[in-house]
Amino acid sequence: MRVDHIAIAVNNVESALTNYQNILKIDKIEMEEVPTEKVRVAMLMLEDTRIELLEPMSEDSPISKFLKQRGEGIHHIAITADNIEEDVDRAVKNGMKFLGDLRTGSYGRKITFIHPKSLNGVLTEFCQAPPQG
Amino acid sequence: MRVDHIAIAVNNVESALTNYQNILKIDKIEMEEVPTEKVRVAMLMLEDTRIELLEPMSEDSPISKFLKQRGEGIHHIAITADNIEEDVDRAVKNGMKFLGDLRTGSYGRKITFIHPKSLNGVLTEFCQAPPQG
Repeated sequence: MRVDHIAIAVNNVESALTNYQNILKIDKIEMEEVPTEKVRVAMLMLEDTRIELLEPMSEDSPISKFLKQRGEGIHHIAITADNIEEDVDRAVKNGMKFLGDLRTGSYGRKITFIHPKSLNGVLTEFCQAPPQG
Repeated sequence: MRVDHIAIAVNNVESALTNYQNILKIDKIEMEEVPTEKVRVAMLMLEDTRIELLEPMSEDSPISKFLKQRGEGIHHIAITADNIEEDVDRAVKNGMKFLGDLRTGSYGRKITFIHPKSLNGVLTEFCQAPPQG
């Protein structure tokens, strides 16, 4: 298992990107809009993982709510699973709570979220990439 | 540059570890006490990075303060630099603020922290391992 990405809620993705570029040597940057999640995303590729800066596209985006309650900061981390059905089953048997069922996210990845109460206050995405090729 | 670790403030390191083991396949776990920072640490080695669970050892630990104000959750992320003096210089020239000077942390690593106001609410450790051998 590895950390797929760290997602950070920001008010403005361009100005946040400038801050991150002032600090980090970023291999590659991709910009994306995800209408289903109502966010604009800057993906900052590092050597082995990526940082995602998330700006809400509307007032009813989950990121808007987070920004209002807590201000800018880390929203969630994402961990890749090799066999997500098996890993989710094991976690459920161990009493872990999830937010929603296993579903298909961007790039055809299978995703679900572990409830922050089950992981010491950390909202954790669990994801698995589709098979290559 | 890569993510060296993600540090999570917890009330009790053993019970937090049980939660994480319920979810994650962890390659290796190391326990450590860091008296200078007044924390007990469980280091959960994943494939390419690690998660650190931090429990305060005393009331005046910075982690105690964080837990009282915000509850359990992500405390900071750490990014490795290849040439930390050069990277800090560049960041300072770009107007980034740091918390304290460059100093030597555990395992002889050079460390400093970027002020969360300079990185959109994210407390970020900047570190560089000593040369091998």
